[in-house]
Order: sequence, then C-alpha cells, then structure tokens
Amino acid sequence: MKKAVILLSGGLDSTTVAAIAKDQGFEIYALSFRYGQRHDQELDAAARIAQLTGVKRHVISEIDLRAFGGSALTDDISVPKTGDTNNSESDIPITYVPARNTIFLSFALAFAETIDSQDIFIGVNALDYSGYPDCRPDYITAYETMANLATRAGVEGTQKLTIHSPLMELNKAGIIKRGLELGVDYSMTTSCYDPAESGASCGQCDACTLRLKGFKEAGLTDPIPYITS
Amino acid sequence: MKKAVILLSGGLDSTTVAAIAKDQGFEIYALSFRYGQRHDQELDAAARIAQLTGVKRHVISEIDLRAFGGSALTDDISVPKTGDTNNSESDIPITYVPARNTIFLSFALAFAETIDSQDIFIGVNALDYSGYPDCRPDYITAYETMANLATRAGVEGTQKLTIHSPLMELNKAGIIKRGLELGVDYSMTTSCYDPAESGASCGQCDACTLRLKGFKEAGLTDPIPYITS
Repeated sequence: MKKAVILLSGGLDSTTVAAIAKDQGFEIYALSFRYGQRHDQELDAAARIAQLTGVKRHVISEIDLRAFGGSALTDDISVPKTGDTNNSESDIPITYVPARNTIFLSFALAFAETIDSQDIFIGVNALDYSGYPDCRPDYITAYETMANLATRAGVEGTQKLTIHSPLMELNKAGIIKRGLELGVDYSMTTSCYDPAESGASCGQCDACTLRLKGFKEAGLTDPIPYITS
Repeated sequence: MKKAVILLSGGLDSTTVAAIAKDQGFEIYALSFRYGQRHDQELDAAARIAQLTGVKRHVISEIDLRAFGGSALTDDISVPKTGDTNNSESDIPITYVPARNTIFLSFALAFAETIDSQDIFIGVNALDYSGYPDCRPDYITAYETMANLATRAGVEGTQKLTIHSPLMELNKAGIIKRGLELGVDYSMTTSCYDPAESGASCGQCDACTLRLKGFKEAGLTDPIPYITS
C-alpha cells in the first residue's frame, strides 16, 4: 500500500483531500501544526477527522510562527469581517501567514522522506482561495521541482516525489459535492478564523464567507453551528 | 540599509556567511533553530557570533524534527566516526536530516517577508558538503524560483527575493581564508556533530574532519579545542 502524507488542518478542504487520497488507495499519514494560531479548535477537528478517516499516524508538529509576526491569524490583530476594508497594503489579506504553506510543505517533505513516501497531498485551491500567493498552481509546480532536488530520491534519481493538489481546479461547491460522494461528514470540520468559545463559527470572516457560499451554491446547508444562525 | 536574513548555526560556514553579508552592507537578522539536535553548543555559539557580528535581531525558532526521525543528528543513532562504514543505504550519510535546509529556508522566507527583506543568506557549499542533496546549486536555484512564487513580492511582481549562497564554489580552506580577511574569530565557532561535555570537538565526525582538513589546507591551526589534541 502506497503511503501519502496529508496536510490536515481540520478544515473543509483538507478533510476532503484526505478522503480523496484514501479513495485513491493511499495509506494516510496526517500532519497538522500548532503554529501559534489564535485557537486550538482546528487541531481538535484535525484529530477527530484523522480518527474518522482511519489514518495510519497523525503527527502534530509544534512550530512557532509568532516569532516573526505579520498576520492576523497568529498576532493580536483583528480578523477582518465582511464589509471591513482590507487593512493590508495590497490585495493579499491580513489573514495571510507569511510562507505558511512553504513551511507546512517542508515539514511534509521531511515526514515523507522519513517514511519513504513519494506523495504529499495539500488542499490548496486556485479559485476560492482568498488571494494567498502560496495557493496557486505555479507555486505548487515550483515546490515540486525544488522538492525533487532536495531529497535522497532526487539525488539518486530513483523516484519522483509528487505534490498532489486535487482541489486546485474546484470551487467550494465542487469540493463539498466531491467530499459528500466520498462520505465526508462536514459537521466534523471547522473553517472559521475567529470562532466563539462555544465553538460556533463567526459567519463573517473570509473563511466562513467562502464556506457558506460553497454550501449555498451546492444547494446544501452547512451542518456546523454559527453565531449568527 | 538593506536587510538580510542569515541562517546562523554557529558553525564555521554560517559565521563566514554572516561576515560576508555584513561586508556587503546588509543589516543582519540572524535565524537559528532548536530542532532536536543532540546538543545545544551550536546555539550557544550562534548567540555569541550574533553578538560579535552586531546583528540587528537574533531569532531562535523552536521546531521539532524528532517527530519524524530518520537522522543521527536528531535521533539516538551513533554519529559515524572516521573509518566507520557508512550505515545508510546510499552515499548520503546518516547525519543527513531529511529536508532540513528546506525547512530552515522556509522559516527564513517567513522571517524575510515579515521584515520586508529580499535577501536570504545560507552557508551551503557544493565542494566540501558531506553529500547532502540540499546543498547543491540546482537545489538553491529551484528554491529561489519557488520562493518568488510563494510570497507577496512574487504576486505583486515588485521585488525579487534572492537566496545568496556565497560559499557555494569555495572549499573549506577558501572559506576560512575569506573569513579571516573579514575578521572572523573562528575560536567562537563550533562544527562538531558529537562534542564532549567540556565543549571539546570529537575530531572524528564528518564535520570535524572537513573542518580540520580546511585549516590544514589553509596552512593554519584550528583555534578550537579537540578531544584528541
């Protein structure tokens, strides 16, 4: 059975990716991060989903991105809600964490090399992607090229490492439909950048807005609780 | 003054790189890692060198590469000494840490993006490089391409991030000579994979062997203490 490393955040996208990888016959090694995010709810969700998906191993890596600062997701900066003016200087939102996917993929690469896996899955998406630079197809392709030069397999020329991004060309509605076909229980997932203590999602941040739009376009109701609902 | 992020391990190579970057007029932001290495002496050395070099800021990031395993530098595996048979299955030594430079550069990228720096310096070296895949010129070039797609600057097309590897074409003797021209005090550095409690270097591991050979070829005596001397 071929092994795959899946970056699992506990959100809608990565949960769907785990189901897709499993459907493709991979044995799943899930990787999550405690990276100084404002709340632990996504790690709780990741642990639930890892168990439901029947992963072989779930590793939570501790890394501290707060040491650098620069994002509303790790710093004491307000998470923008619908109608807020974007308070960053460009079209890239303030919730962007510098180099986050690059760091996450690099840990996935270390994990993959250690367990002799040639397949890494990541739930990035070029359509409903919040404007983050490290979610684009060109970026993933360049990462794969670099990764093949970084590792034993690349030196020996024996194997090729692949970065799979099966959601790249799907919109949120498409992702949800694909996940439901594969039996994903979206009530177990969480996407909100700024949930209430109760666990209810805010319904107002970028992540909630995209998620709710996806369920609506798919003609479905999101099964998770929202503060505003 | 242009800012540069320097990966500073406290070893001979990265210390020379810091001196080169300073000589080129950069304001230095040094980045070191506590990554589950077997000893903290290299972090002590990094802190000393950061101070001597007059860096603007020195960040030590905590990351746990032991979660994945697979290297003599982070696991409970013996560090090979001169004359040992290489106990890995290929020409890549067991002291190789999977994806280490990829992870280190990814943190440097996050740091650089946060402080608005377009320049990252790393002390890799294609000649006396111990056979690690992530020390080759092709790897560094591919990393730079990926990094420019990963970040705000890449999206906006306003700036170009450069990964500087000024030691790439030098041998150890050449590195030492260049450092001495720039006033580096090599007695402050440490390279050994397996030092004694006293801080004395083993003189037998790959890192010591390369270092001693470098000083010898430069016609100099290494100023640090060795167990065998």
